[in-house]
Amino acid sequence: MAGNTFGELFRVTTWGESHGPGIGVVIDGCPPGLALDEAGVQKMLDRRKPGGGSIASTARKEADRAVILSGVFEGKTTGTPILIMAHNRDARSSAYTDIAGLFRPGHGDITYTAKYGIRDWRGGGRASARETFGRVAAGAVAAELLRLSGISVAAYTLELGGIRATTIDVGQVDQNMFGCPDSTVMAAMTDRVTQVKRRGDSVGGIVEVRADGVPAGLGEPVFDKLDADIAKALMSIGAVKGVEIGAGFEASGMTGSRSNDEITPQGFATNNAGGILAGISNGDRIVARAAVKPIPSIGITQQTVDTNGKPASISIKGRHDISAIPRINVVCEAMVCLVLADHLLRQKAISWTR
Amino acid sequence: MAGNTFGELFRVTTWGESHGPGIGVVIDGCPPGLALDEAGVQKMLDRRKPGGGSIASTARKEADRAVILSGVFEGKTTGTPILIMAHNRDARSSAYTDIAGLFRPGHGDITYTAKYGIRDWRGGGRASARETFGRVAAGAVAAELLRLSGISVAAYTLELGGIRATTIDVGQVDQNMFGCPDSTVMAAMTDRVTQVKRRGDSVGGIVEVRADGVPAGLGEPVFDKLDADIAKALMSIGAVKGVEIGAGFEASGMTGSRSNDEITPQGFATNNAGGILAGISNGDRIVARAAVKPIPSIGITQQTVDTNGKPASISIKGRHDISAIPRINVVCEAMVCLVLADHLLRQKAISWTR
Amino acid sequence: MAGNTFGELFRVTTWGESHGPGIGVVIDGCPPGLALDEAGVQKMLDRRKPGGGSIASTARKEADRAVILSGVFEGKTTGTPILIMAHNRDARSSAYTDIAGLFRPGHGDITYTAKYGIRDWRGGGRASARETFGRVAAGAVAAELLRLSGISVAAYTLELGGIRATTIDVGQVDQNMFGCPDSTVMAAMTDRVTQVKRRGDSVGGIVEVRADGVPAGLGEPVFDKLDADIAKALMSIGAVKGVEIGAGFEASGMTGSRSNDEITPQGFATNNAGGILAGISNGDRIVARAAVKPIPSIGITQQTVDTNGKPASISIKGRHDISAIPRINVVCEAMVCLVLADHLLRQKAISWTR
Amino acid sequence: MAGNTFGELFRVTTWGESHGPGIGVVIDGCPPGLALDEAGVQKMLDRRKPGGGSIASTARKEADRAVILSGVFEGKTTGTPILIMAHNRDARSSAYTDIAGLFRPGHGDITYTAKYGIRDWRGGGRASARETFGRVAAGAVAAELLRLSGISVAAYTLELGGIRATTIDVGQVDQNMFGCPDSTVMAAMTDRVTQVKRRGDSVGGIVEVRADGVPAGLGEPVFDKLDADIAKALMSIGAVKGVEIGAGFEASGMTGSRSNDEITPQGFATNNAGGILAGISNGDRIVARAAVKPIPSIGITQQTVDTNGKPASISIKGRHDISAIPRINVVCEAMVCLVLADHLLRQKAISWTR
Repeated sequence: MAGNTFGELFRVTTWGESHGPGIGVVIDGCPPGLALDEAGVQKMLDRRKPGGGSIASTARKEADRAVILSGVFEGKTTGTPILIMAHNRDARSSAYTDIAGLFRPGHGDITYTAKYGIRDWRGGGRASARETFGRVAAGAVAAELLRLSGISVAAYTLELGGIRATTIDVGQVDQNMFGCPDSTVMAAMTDRVTQVKRRGDSVGGIVEVRADGVPAGLGEPVFDKLDADIAKALMSIGAVKGVEIGAGFEASGMTGSRSNDEITPQGFATNNAGGILAGISNGDRIVARAAVKPIPSIGITQQTVDTNGKPASISIKGRHDISAIPRINVVCEAMVCLVLADHLLRQKAISWTR
Repeated sequence: MAGNTFGELFRVTTWGESHGPGIGVVIDGCPPGLALDEAGVQKMLDRRKPGGGSIASTARKEADRAVILSGVFEGKTTGTPILIMAHNRDARSSAYTDIAGLFRPGHGDITYTAKYGIRDWRGGGRASARETFGRVAAGAVAAELLRLSGISVAAYTLELGGIRATTIDVGQVDQNMFGCPDSTVMAAMTDRVTQVKRRGDSVGGIVEVRADGVPAGLGEPVFDKLDADIAKALMSIGAVKGVEIGAGFEASGMTGSRSNDEITPQGFATNNAGGILAGISNGDRIVARAAVKPIPSIGITQQTVDTNGKPASISIKGRHDISAIPRINVVCEAMVCLVLADHLLRQKAISWTR
Repeated sequence: MAGNTFGELFRVTTWGESHGPGIGVVIDGCPPGLALDEAGVQKMLDRRKPGGGSIASTARKEADRAVILSGVFEGKTTGTPILIMAHNRDARSSAYTDIAGLFRPGHGDITYTAKYGIRDWRGGGRASARETFGRVAAGAVAAELLRLSGISVAAYTLELGGIRATTIDVGQVDQNMFGCPDSTVMAAMTDRVTQVKRRGDSVGGIVEVRADGVPAGLGEPVFDKLDADIAKALMSIGAVKGVEIGAGFEASGMTGSRSNDEITPQGFATNNAGGILAGISNGDRIVARAAVKPIPSIGITQQTVDTNGKPASISIKGRHDISAIPRINVVCEAMVCLVLADHLLRQKAISWTR
Repeated sequence: MAGNTFGELFRVTTWGESHGPGIGVVIDGCPPGLALDEAGVQKMLDRRKPGGGSIASTARKEADRAVILSGVFEGKTTGTPILIMAHNRDARSSAYTDIAGLFRPGHGDITYTAKYGIRDWRGGGRASARETFGRVAAGAVAAELLRLSGISVAAYTLELGGIRATTIDVGQVDQNMFGCPDSTVMAAMTDRVTQVKRRGDSVGGIVEVRADGVPAGLGEPVFDKLDADIAKALMSIGAVKGVEIGAGFEASGMTGSRSNDEITPQGFATNNAGGILAGISNGDRIVARAAVKPIPSIGITQQTVDTNGKPASISIKGRHDISAIPRINVVCEAMVCLVLADHLLRQKAISWTR
């Protein structure tokens, strides 16, 4: 129960540090017979690749070439654990030596040291965004399982640096460097990011995830509600500070007559519930949002302490993104896939008696 | 893994339906030697009591007299499972007979039916707020464990019906019927609730929970982060549609230079992190918020379908709260206590080697 | 993870002490739609009743009247947690006051004290055979689930006080006070037990459990093998010191050519495997055996220490069985039912993809 | 919950097939600060190496060179997941092509096919003894943790081919090719194995594991008893068909006055309990035994069916051991180490309150 495992039936354990020899994931509980190969996994992984042209992303080139070491035979899953890993390359831990004695504001250095009594100064260790390799690789397998049941999941940039999409056209998402479904806000986002980058600062934003085709009935009362598990899944991503389902925080200001989704023979009239009622999917589209904080590694000088508690100042020079968005989007998508795959199997376990 | 259990080491399983013979909880993993009696548990339970004078709450009088059936000997916990329960009384399921054939908008009737193929029309079953009896009873035990380590948790109404507290004076919380830490907004809240009540409508709001005295080092990377578990804990409460930690959604609009909490030898200069960095407590106050949707049971007529899918209209007459707030506050507090107690034990398991 | 829970999908948590106000069990994960009532549960519970005429059993009269407090609606399971409990009656803890300061040889008093730092002298606490109430009540629910899939489980006395059944006629089991499938050894068993009882001593024996109708494919490699879970299930019963599957310890003395079960188009030629190959059921009858140690509470004087570690002698006077057999048989049966029900659900979760 | 994970706090997940590209294990929950390097892990792994001179073992030369890919920094564990793996070499799956269409008696081919609907004919897949690589690698880490608390574990051959050791001199174990603690039975064991080998047959035996230095108090009532978890741990090893603790099956024939271990101020007078009372360690030596069936792969012709259910005969030619003993001994030892490490952490979590 050391926290590196997610899911009950579709069960994922990630391992590896940002500057160790490799990173990866074990997936246990994937049913047999799914088509799976490295190319398919790689395709989803490539969406978290840095330097993909986005001005918001770092120039660090990570190969992250996924290899499958177990659980697949003749192109199909066998029902046994699936190990997917990548060897770490281009991981210059020397880049970190000049800040090895300092705690970086907004980072986990100080809390990892408090927790474990150990100071691993090489670029974040488990708290690094590189840990998400395992999440996305597993998410690719989960997505394949969901496809069998007609479920599809998509994530996109709803807001970046305070600029918010006003329309959602999922077809636009792959057409721009911000992963944004609204082409009309491109200019404003670009301006905003360019400005901030010039100052050596960073920005946050909001990622929206939607799942279509989810049948009614997924989610387990009372603690393992579908929305509770999505909340945990998204909040477990390093940069996320808030999670909403459906109308979310806006619902707190509504009246019941407005927030309730009326029911018609054709389905729900509105979707303030975000597809989840009492923790169980209602057959409508599932909609979740994650609030992403700005990248804490900034060039601007900040006050901090060294590992002896003495005051110091710090300015991070390395290759860092301006925003976790849009690279984080596929991680959010992967996490929602993991939750849905898990609950799909859980529902299969109990629904055969009727 | 049917979802009625929460926590890994401090492990809580709730059971019971709103209109069955009883409701309760089993707590497994509570260390031995804690002082525990029914009066102490009852004190926390009484804070979720309806009809406590608040105009926002129902007149249904639930005794909810907690009895401890196991795990305590001579006033102390023994290390064995603690069973706390209450017999259900004043549960007139007949009040529901006129809507037994309809699905109530905003409620779990329709999703429970989809999930289990069973229609229990008696007032919500497991989705009822009565299920929270077990959560709060367990929270009272967790709070006792936290007290041993100098940790205290408090929840209060940050916003109700769109009226938001502007100052936080925890001493005020028990002094008013809304559980609000800001006496200056009482009049506005009262007005708002009275208006809405007159129309047969309901309101939502925002609960804030803070934990003081939490040592640095609690929380398990990478999935069982402290904030991820708090997010799940709060989102697992029926009416909650959003969760934030620290600056939360506001952080998504900040720059890194503003959202980062600078570090001084005396501690963090600000607390946008809400006391949690990289999923691990940083020694600062932990701050979480839950967005609570309006009570879905309203007197206003709404469109729905009956259990055969035929269109129908519905207006709920029974005794229902105008808002889940303030009764839900202690549930939020209890859930955060459960998370902290669990992570406290988890940290004890690994910190002895140094 | 405090150890009072068994099973992953069909998940059982027992609670209660021998001399507390009540004992019981929560069953989480039972699918909806099973026929279930108190009478059915009681029927299985009555088989562990003491004083049932057997000269091997105590005269203590325990009502153990099972009540179902949740999870059943209109005679069917709803999919929500099932709470079954009994109030403790006729529990004279005063009977234990004269040995309250001593550790009883062969009992858990001394280890519970070491573990928890607490001395509950009232008749065994959680280590009492009364804890098995919850196991058998849950076993009755599991048996109902298994019945849906055509699986039946039976337990009987294979050996008692060194006297071993030579033929297995399951029809005989209910016909004699030892739960023995071989009527020809009745006289010898009676003699043996009578002799030992006269001396104030006790005896052990061997229980055999068989499961018929188990489909091939249940059991999860590699740790949660079906036989591994049966071994844990049986060994978790207080008095059990050994577990075998199929040929068991005898297999260790065989050659491969003899222990291998040859395969024919009609099935396996022999069943040394006990119905389990590589941890997965093979479609044949499952056969397991549990070695039961003698009841440690004996009238014969033995050396021990008091709670201060000072030498003392002890002789137990209370109402105690001569042997855990045959009352323990239904507990063994219940545990195997729990294992099979759990693995049946686990297999349902993964077998739908083909 | 697909079964490839063992332990609650010291949590091990193995992955990999016998003829896939690699095999390994993730260990999650290992506390920080333990000295750990590949050489130390390799030392324990080498004890399961085939062809080590034993006439009972195969000539297949497996490199099994352990590499640590995560969780260790500067020679110490960091508290994060430890990935240990080996690349598979010398894995000629072609050796299996002539039996690819047949089910091997005594093997899991037939049950894996029933479970997963997939026929992986390459030498056993997950059911292969090669899966134990991960168990032993993890056991080496667990042993290091136990060493910190003064606990040591040893396994040895108690019986082989029906020849039983009469004295236990642990110093002898490394001195002979059977891992036997009694040098006086060497000649008889050699004779027996040589004879059987000549016939193309195989033998079974009994492994005994002892743990010294285990403090009183480890083990969780009621299901996760220390002996229940040991029983599961040992029975989860492919070839094991029976498990005993202390007097084990012999206890079933004793009277209580003989099986009870009397207590003196200096400790227990005997150890029929095998160091465990009511599922909790009593401070005495822990003693467990595993009954190992003969290797099912034999040269002698046997009846079987092909994958279409047609009758066939089979004789296995490949490089196979005559007995799983002594190579299995270190696997038994590793599994007991895993159980003890897990329960040590569990006890740390709850024992700090006093």
